[in-house]
Amino acid sequence: MSKPVVGIIMGSQSDLKVMKEAAEILEELQVAYKLTIVSAHRTPDRMIDYARSARSKGLKVIIAGAGGAAHLPGMVASMTTLPVIGVPVKSSNSIDGWDSVLSILQMPGGIPVATVALDGAKNAGILAAEMVGAFDESVAKNLEKYKDELKEKVLKSAESIEEKGWRGSKIGF
Amino acid sequence: MSKPVVGIIMGSQSDLKVMKEAAEILEELQVAYKLTIVSAHRTPDRMIDYARSARSKGLKVIIAGAGGAAHLPGMVASMTTLPVIGVPVKSSNSIDGWDSVLSILQMPGGIPVATVALDGAKNAGILAAEMVGAFDESVAKNLEKYKDELKEKVLKSAESIEEKGWRGSKIGF
Amino acid sequence: MSKPVVGIIMGSQSDLKVMKEAAEILEELQVAYKLTIVSAHRTPDRMIDYARSARSKGLKVIIAGAGGAAHLPGMVASMTTLPVIGVPVKSSNSIDGWDSVLSILQMPGGIPVATVALDGAKNAGILAAEMVGAFDESVAKNLEKYKDELKEKVLKSAESIEEKGWRGSKIGF
Amino acid sequence: MSKPVVGIIMGSQSDLKVMKEAAEILEELQVAYKLTIVSAHRTPDRMIDYARSARSKGLKVIIAGAGGAAHLPGMVASMTTLPVIGVPVKSSNSIDGWDSVLSILQMPGGIPVATVALDGAKNAGILAAEMVGAFDESVAKNLEKYKDELKEKVLKSAESIEEKGWRGSKIGF
Amino acid sequence: MSKPVVGIIMGSQSDLKVMKEAAEILEELQVAYKLTIVSAHRTPDRMIDYARSARSKGLKVIIAGAGGAAHLPGMVASMTTLPVIGVPVKSSNSIDGWDSVLSILQMPGGIPVATVALDGAKNAGILAAEMVGAFDESVAKNLEKYKDELKEKVLKSAESIEEKGWRGSKIGF
Amino acid sequence: MSKPVVGIIMGSQSDLKVMKEAAEILEELQVAYKLTIVSAHRTPDRMIDYARSARSKGLKVIIAGAGGAAHLPGMVASMTTLPVIGVPVKSSNSIDGWDSVLSILQMPGGIPVATVALDGAKNAGILAAEMVGAFDESVAKNLEKYKDELKEKVLKSAESIEEKGWRGSKIGF
Amino acid sequence: MSKPVVGIIMGSQSDLKVMKEAAEILEELQVAYKLTIVSAHRTPDRMIDYARSARSKGLKVIIAGAGGAAHLPGMVASMTTLPVIGVPVKSSNSIDGWDSVLSILQMPGGIPVATVALDGAKNAGILAAEMVGAFDESVAKNLEKYKDELKEKVLKSAESIEEKGWRGSKIGF
Amino acid sequence: MSKPVVGIIMGSQSDLKVMKEAAEILEELQVAYKLTIVSAHRTPDRMIDYARSARSKGLKVIIAGAGGAAHLPGMVASMTTLPVIGVPVKSSNSIDGWDSVLSILQMPGGIPVATVALDGAKNAGILAAEMVGAFDESVAKNLEKYKDELKEKVLKSAESIEEKGWRGSKIGF
Repeated sequence: MSKPVVGIIMGSQSDLKVMKEAAEILEELQVAYKLTIVSAHRTPDRMIDYARSARSKGLKVIIAGAGGAAHLPGMVASMTTLPVIGVPVKSSNSIDGWDSVLSILQMPGGIPVATVALDGAKNAGILAAEMVGAFDESVAKNLEKYKDELKEKVLKSAESIEEKGWRGSKIGF
Repeated sequence: MSKPVVGIIMGSQSDLKVMKEAAEILEELQVAYKLTIVSAHRTPDRMIDYARSARSKGLKVIIAGAGGAAHLPGMVASMTTLPVIGVPVKSSNSIDGWDSVLSILQMPGGIPVATVALDGAKNAGILAAEMVGAFDESVAKNLEKYKDELKEKVLKSAESIEEKGWRGSKIGF
Repeated sequence: MSKPVVGIIMGSQSDLKVMKEAAEILEELQVAYKLTIVSAHRTPDRMIDYARSARSKGLKVIIAGAGGAAHLPGMVASMTTLPVIGVPVKSSNSIDGWDSVLSILQMPGGIPVATVALDGAKNAGILAAEMVGAFDESVAKNLEKYKDELKEKVLKSAESIEEKGWRGSKIGF
Repeated sequence: MSKPVVGIIMGSQSDLKVMKEAAEILEELQVAYKLTIVSAHRTPDRMIDYARSARSKGLKVIIAGAGGAAHLPGMVASMTTLPVIGVPVKSSNSIDGWDSVLSILQMPGGIPVATVALDGAKNAGILAAEMVGAFDESVAKNLEKYKDELKEKVLKSAESIEEKGWRGSKIGF
Repeated sequence: MSKPVVGIIMGSQSDLKVMKEAAEILEELQVAYKLTIVSAHRTPDRMIDYARSARSKGLKVIIAGAGGAAHLPGMVASMTTLPVIGVPVKSSNSIDGWDSVLSILQMPGGIPVATVALDGAKNAGILAAEMVGAFDESVAKNLEKYKDELKEKVLKSAESIEEKGWRGSKIGF
Repeated sequence: MSKPVVGIIMGSQSDLKVMKEAAEILEELQVAYKLTIVSAHRTPDRMIDYARSARSKGLKVIIAGAGGAAHLPGMVASMTTLPVIGVPVKSSNSIDGWDSVLSILQMPGGIPVATVALDGAKNAGILAAEMVGAFDESVAKNLEKYKDELKEKVLKSAESIEEKGWRGSKIGF
Repeated sequence: MSKPVVGIIMGSQSDLKVMKEAAEILEELQVAYKLTIVSAHRTPDRMIDYARSARSKGLKVIIAGAGGAAHLPGMVASMTTLPVIGVPVKSSNSIDGWDSVLSILQMPGGIPVATVALDGAKNAGILAAEMVGAFDESVAKNLEKYKDELKEKVLKSAESIEEKGWRGSKIGF
Repeated sequence: MSKPVVGIIMGSQSDLKVMKEAAEILEELQVAYKLTIVSAHRTPDRMIDYARSARSKGLKVIIAGAGGAAHLPGMVASMTTLPVIGVPVKSSNSIDGWDSVLSILQMPGGIPVATVALDGAKNAGILAAEMVGAFDESVAKNLEKYKDELKEKVLKSAESIEEKGWRGSKIGF
């Protein structure tokens, strides 16, 4: 694999069950990434080092996932000029996810975080690939192909339903 | 004034119109404080220095106010063993204050923030005085007196209404 | 065990499954506590006695947990000059916890409650220890140690993931 | 005026601008009431006396208004067997009124509060009159008359609009 | 059983699993009730008959439960001068219960509904008993006894916990 | 004007300032309507008559606007087989409009209401025209023309901005 | 079956488990429909074709279901003059359904969508039938019959409960 | 100015008062942009053309602002492989901005939108610059300088407050 251009971080290993989808889609889109654990509240020094050295290590974008009062994406964004994508994770004690969404989305002027949907790690991966693909034709082509596949899947299920009727189709897939 | 035992910080000077109430009530309760500006996102190094040196400088409690995706109280709490009181400030682009409330209140296990009501800087000051007063009799006495005054004010307005009837009383004060 | 400095109360025995975490962390941090049942609505006289005698019994801080229209933390706070920590409990008929959060957090001017996250009894315990630790070096040291352990755990899981890759790590722990 | 059967209380004089509507409608419906100030947090003893003596003083129902983390209606309800009507008041620092609504409405099993709409003091007065009117024919008649007037007002404005068209009618009244 | 003084209605038989608690507590408090099904949307004529004849049939108060866009309590209230207690039921397609709560609570001026907590049918029963008990000493006595039992239960569990410690107590009951 | 095919009703004259937009757009689209006042809670009999006779009077669709605990659209829908469009009106004591939205939208199975946006009376008028236009070519043509005008307005402002730059354009219109 | 007059579309086959209820009720009401898959985001061209040709194909109304940031109903509505009914679907990563509800309901002026309750596909089908039935007597009769059956079911369960008492009735059905 | 690399679009000229901040900050950061009006609902064809040709015209990122049921950012994202930044605009009939936030943020898997805070057009501009700056050193330098200025402003106001005390400082700026 080539040198990582996307960094994926999360506050604790328990976030992996959501955040691994970012890694999987980046592999599918052939974008090199590096994934690790960085906690804003438990390892602030590590977070600072990570954020400040990210650019010089060759990263082009950082994906940060966190739940509850989620400070990791915003704090990392405050210490780098790279774009930071925030993934609100619906953790166990979350108030229906509103806490993670709002504490990542509502950043003050000057320090943006590119927020995706609740538990939207897959979309975070695609968004990172789009940022890279804006400057890298081969990644752009992979994205184009990925979109085509999404389209094909819909067209196929439409065709099947129109042919066999909805009673003949699998429901809920 | 004696050596400050309460530190009051906020992300920007625009928060002063809310946060000054913490300073005013601490003066009334005769608890020495120091107030300054520290931004989690704009001056992360300053925040780290502030949090890490707070205890050795003699502070017993820190009051931190912030709006929107409010990370200051939680980040400071992650870097000190002093209690941190968080004041959610309803800033201009806030979604009705929900963003500041949730990003201060819903801290992950291990890093508590003592959250007060939206724009509740006055109560933050009283809470700080209570923490000090638990170990300092003279502050406790001032708190006792303050509570008595609250009571007296209610009793007086009750008496006036019962005497003169509500039509004879000022409405909305 | 030495004389209790933290009082832990809750409205009913059913809150124990949440509130016991406050007791457990205080034991770990070696802070003496006393836990009992006090209901604002079912035993108002007991609540008043508890609140009014807390200081003279040597308590330095009270942790009060309650669900739904949660009045216990605020009512106790109105009758003592000790700091009161409120734990919103997500009870069975709660509207997603919003009721407990708001009826503890949004106290009127003059009567603060130090509110922690929904079901955040563990953090309530740590916060109480921080209040004691501001004036007691040995508790402060235990808090320091506790924070170090949190950090170590994150560093270890980061190391493991960087070595073995995320596919080689336990997901969701 | 005869002996009061409805007690109207509120936490502070500032609530009068909302709560006076309860008094006004009770006068219109010719139900005797007594209005005063009782604060759950600032005058707990006064609240307890009020609640415990209400029945023996001849009251049949209590209307209690409060804002923010509104504990007055619920606490009074816990200390009397009279029905208590709670009026959530949208106070200045309220989070859009949700705090008062939820901390009055979501009472635990055993201690009901009859909650009306946000700032719904007028409806609280009518509801109190209905409770009295269930056992008192003359009050019931006044309620019947009041309902008829509401109906007449709608019918008149309907007639006017149908005759003159909506462009000929006052808009917004 | 004597003549019913409380009417309990609900929109569909599926609401019985919540609404039966109103019936059970009224039996315990020895207040005669009559329970049946009345739907605002499916049997509007039946609803109108029910509401308009309730008073003349000797009812003193009506308890109406409904879910989703819950119109039954408010519509019945508009056609009687008896007090109407509304129970918001959290039905299957409800948006977390907010729909039922708001469409019962937020009644316009002139037509109050005494709203209780989400799924709070038990409290609706107690509230109805309180309305009756304001004019009926024997019901008031039963309420007094019921409150004493609530208190005793709390005191007993407090005693047990203080004796045996919380580790020796059943957790979550 | 020809015979009305759209009925516009609202609970009180104060709703006219919102609901008149439905009338205005129907005039523009040349669809005959009749507007009047009908209150679910104040004139239930009138509402029943209105709903039950609507079809036989030649109406094809009913637009009903209401605020707070808004029961008019749903109750009318329960007593006719015509489609009913509900307009949630943000009335003065509304909790940010959520009450009207939810008590119109969340109708139980069997009794649909076609809900439009908060204060969306204009869209209600267009929707009514679309229902008529599905069976009436001349109304469909008017709708086509209306959509073209919306498009032209956007294209014109786009052209102006691209020519003169955004600094040369009126901002906020 | 005769030529379809109702079109039912949804963004993905996984929505069938909700959306099939629209199809089933239309069959019961004997209104011809055609159901297929059309995705706003994955097959935009297909969506455009569908919307623009719907009228000429003889459709009178379109039912569109979607979850999360649900754009299908609104986008289709922007490209046809037929009425469009939107069904907010509570998809797996939805924030309690609020996202689908608001992104369908809150359409800008000029482009209405007739929104029904969360997961309210059955009501969408009935609403579509009502639109057709406004111009088609036989469909109107089927709707009349359907309403009668709803009424009968309620009356029967009321009768059973009044006879046997609620303890003798099935609870929760 | 060089060839635009950022496209800024919005649904109507009324959004300019919010969206112009994106243009202003891009000018300050010396990133070439092109701003125009594109409406998802009023000019769907124009939107499609815009989205499909954006990449070949040399754009690297698109900023799309919209209010209410905001479909523009998501629909554009579905028709390009460029990253799309969505700005939720709090329009006049919005339900406190929740509608725009959720209908931009909660995109389905496969079609991400990089969402910023409510009315956060300035942050959208900075985020776009960061995406460009990840591959363009001179833009990265401008971002670095911008961050330094933010820091300096905070440090200066901190210094002033520490010197003169908060009473000597302008409050609310």
